[in-house]
Amino acid sequence: MAVGDLQMPVMQPVQGVRIGIAESYIRYQNRRDLVVFELAEGSTTAAVFTQNSFCAAPVLVAREHLGLNSPRYLVINTGNANAGTGPQGLKNANASCEALAALTQTQSNQILPFSTGVIGEQLPIDRLVAGLPAALKALDENAWTEAAHGIMTTDTLPKGASEILMLNGDTYTITGISKGAGMIRPNMATMLSFVATDAPIARDVLQTLLTNAVNQSFNRITIDGDTSTNDACVLVATGKAGGDVLSSVTDNRYSDFEAAFNRVFLRLAQLIVRDGEGATKFMTVRVEGGANTQECCDVAYRVAHSPLIKTAFFASDPNWGRIVCAIGNAGVNSLDVSNVQVFLDDVQIVKDGGANPEYTEAAGAAVMAQPEIGIRISLGRGEAVDTVWTCDFSYDYVKINADYRS
Amino acid sequence: MAVGDLQMPVMQPVQGVRIGIAESYIRYQNRRDLVVFELAEGSTTAAVFTQNSFCAAPVLVAREHLGLNSPRYLVINTGNANAGTGPQGLKNANASCEALAALTQTQSNQILPFSTGVIGEQLPIDRLVAGLPAALKALDENAWTEAAHGIMTTDTLPKGASEILMLNGDTYTITGISKGAGMIRPNMATMLSFVATDAPIARDVLQTLLTNAVNQSFNRITIDGDTSTNDACVLVATGKAGGDVLSSVTDNRYSDFEAAFNRVFLRLAQLIVRDGEGATKFMTVRVEGGANTQECCDVAYRVAHSPLIKTAFFASDPNWGRIVCAIGNAGVNSLDVSNVQVFLDDVQIVKDGGANPEYTEAAGAAVMAQPEIGIRISLGRGEAVDTVWTCDFSYDYVKINADYRS
Repeated sequence: MAVGDLQMPVMQPVQGVRIGIAESYIRYQNRRDLVVFELAEGSTTAAVFTQNSFCAAPVLVAREHLGLNSPRYLVINTGNANAGTGPQGLKNANASCEALAALTQTQSNQILPFSTGVIGEQLPIDRLVAGLPAALKALDENAWTEAAHGIMTTDTLPKGASEILMLNGDTYTITGISKGAGMIRPNMATMLSFVATDAPIARDVLQTLLTNAVNQSFNRITIDGDTSTNDACVLVATGKAGGDVLSSVTDNRYSDFEAAFNRVFLRLAQLIVRDGEGATKFMTVRVEGGANTQECCDVAYRVAHSPLIKTAFFASDPNWGRIVCAIGNAGVNSLDVSNVQVFLDDVQIVKDGGANPEYTEAAGAAVMAQPEIGIRISLGRGEAVDTVWTCDFSYDYVKINADYRS
Repeated sequence: MAVGDLQMPVMQPVQGVRIGIAESYIRYQNRRDLVVFELAEGSTTAAVFTQNSFCAAPVLVAREHLGLNSPRYLVINTGNANAGTGPQGLKNANASCEALAALTQTQSNQILPFSTGVIGEQLPIDRLVAGLPAALKALDENAWTEAAHGIMTTDTLPKGASEILMLNGDTYTITGISKGAGMIRPNMATMLSFVATDAPIARDVLQTLLTNAVNQSFNRITIDGDTSTNDACVLVATGKAGGDVLSSVTDNRYSDFEAAFNRVFLRLAQLIVRDGEGATKFMTVRVEGGANTQECCDVAYRVAHSPLIKTAFFASDPNWGRIVCAIGNAGVNSLDVSNVQVFLDDVQIVKDGGANPEYTEAAGAAVMAQPEIGIRISLGRGEAVDTVWTCDFSYDYVKINADYRS
């Protein structure tokens, strides 16, 4: 199931970025499981990676290469995460870079590798390498939609966002794709996202824009609380659209870029939740009135991770007791519960820490019948606000994740 | 479903403790939903309560009374948790104490009230008070098994433990009951446990014994990670069996008492997991080789709370990728994953952070077919060890918790 609008937009090409997709039989026949991004010379690239200690071999290699050189190619395979694969896994990740470098007359540290799929099995590197020429031959500026398909594993739908930004007479495109949240095979969900713009942006500014955007998007979604071993998010700026390089956060164009990137990343992140495993509800958990952002996040995540709340939402049950229980468990120091208010959209269910006497079951049921629901919690102890997006917990979640490896 | 041995033992009476059970129609007809414990004069009582900020009215009252006086009665109702009930809830909790005090010629601060059941609804205090005379009339030393039934809500079985301890020629009994983990109605699971001994134990030593025992039992179990608003655990020592008062942890009998209490509490705690909502597997997550206890617990809880691992165990899938993913997410500082080993009982599935080359699917499948499974994780960075008990995550978990309030 997928919740709400997941339609792919018109995916505007980004000057300086070409994408080639091929079949390399990593795990399945008849699946385009290999995607190569070619980045024009002079592009700047920023990336963020999983915080999991057990991070996958390609994550280790990509992180290292990014520190050594300017990336010219991204190589992404599905069907195998190359995680938990030890020294051989590292060798394979490096071998994919070396093979692509040889084919493109670049250096292998100009290649960033990414993998997603089954973990704990060695990457069939020969098959991946054998697929590279076909992917290079297919390179095309107008292949973003195909790329969104090409990085899917058990996602039910491709995920993309695209935006055109006009600034001081220059026209810039921002286009990106993401994948994640399907897990019919018993692997970890792996989240990947690749976003590019043809705007000229200095590397450090690009990293700042990426970090800010990710903190408000991918770092604010949760399906089951398990951070994967392979998460990676890459932002490329090719500069091919021309104009002055955005080289400082004090540039007067910075805030417009920031807003545009934030919109694109938020859309890509929310698409993952909407396509969450077994999801039937899309929930926005907004916590306001916190003493600081951290406690707003702590409360929001506690609510978003509670199996009791997620199953209640699956059942369309406005069970405020479970919500206040989760708030009470979030570790907020000296929380005065008599200041806590809880709303489902505009329906107040908890007033001053207890049942709202004006609440009616009919009003609650009307909100809960919707596929998209806002949970708004006011802590009444400050001005901080933060938001987390999540989905409910259904029979299909258990089904998808209890399916035995076939 | 319930996993493994949940049989009630012979529940030895504890001199100085009498128990009366009655029907007070708190929520249902024909259910013995009111339990009164009478504690002999001179008994010492220790208790621990939920850490949830939204703690229930009876928790607030019991905690206050325990600080003011020596308890002579415990009054426990099921069917209503008196949580999220505001000032009226506090009035009702106090009213139950006042009514029982008047009937027993005690002071109301010698009464500790406990409630479990639906949250967010006012306690029908008149019905509870009306049931007290019948409960008092029924007071009996041999009513522990009935009391285990009387505090059940949606538990599928009563839970008890009983042990006789001989020390320096004195014979002491330790008997206790617990409840929790059923949640067919959409409330929070509320865990309650009451344990008594006829040994003479000073109040501060009793509190130490209780805190130690709880830290190794109730504080090491998890079903869904949601700490309830009503959790409470009480340990009473009546002293009626005579002998010298245990007034210091340096007393040479202390370690024997400690071991006995730990056994009783661990059994009562594990019974809750065995009767966990929808449970089909009982899992012991032991983390060893940690630099300190905290990181062992962090890893064990991360594993025990992971919906991905819990659904894999439901499916009898030895999915080690999900386990290493959870270990990697536990926030252990500078974890060297190449030192991590993972065993399912005696079958090593992860060796030095990757797949164990000697592992066979047949060996893994044999362990996973068992209803009780040990997950043993070695972090290879120190001497600390800790253990958490949990259960799997089944369709029935979703069913139980998604059932609408009727």
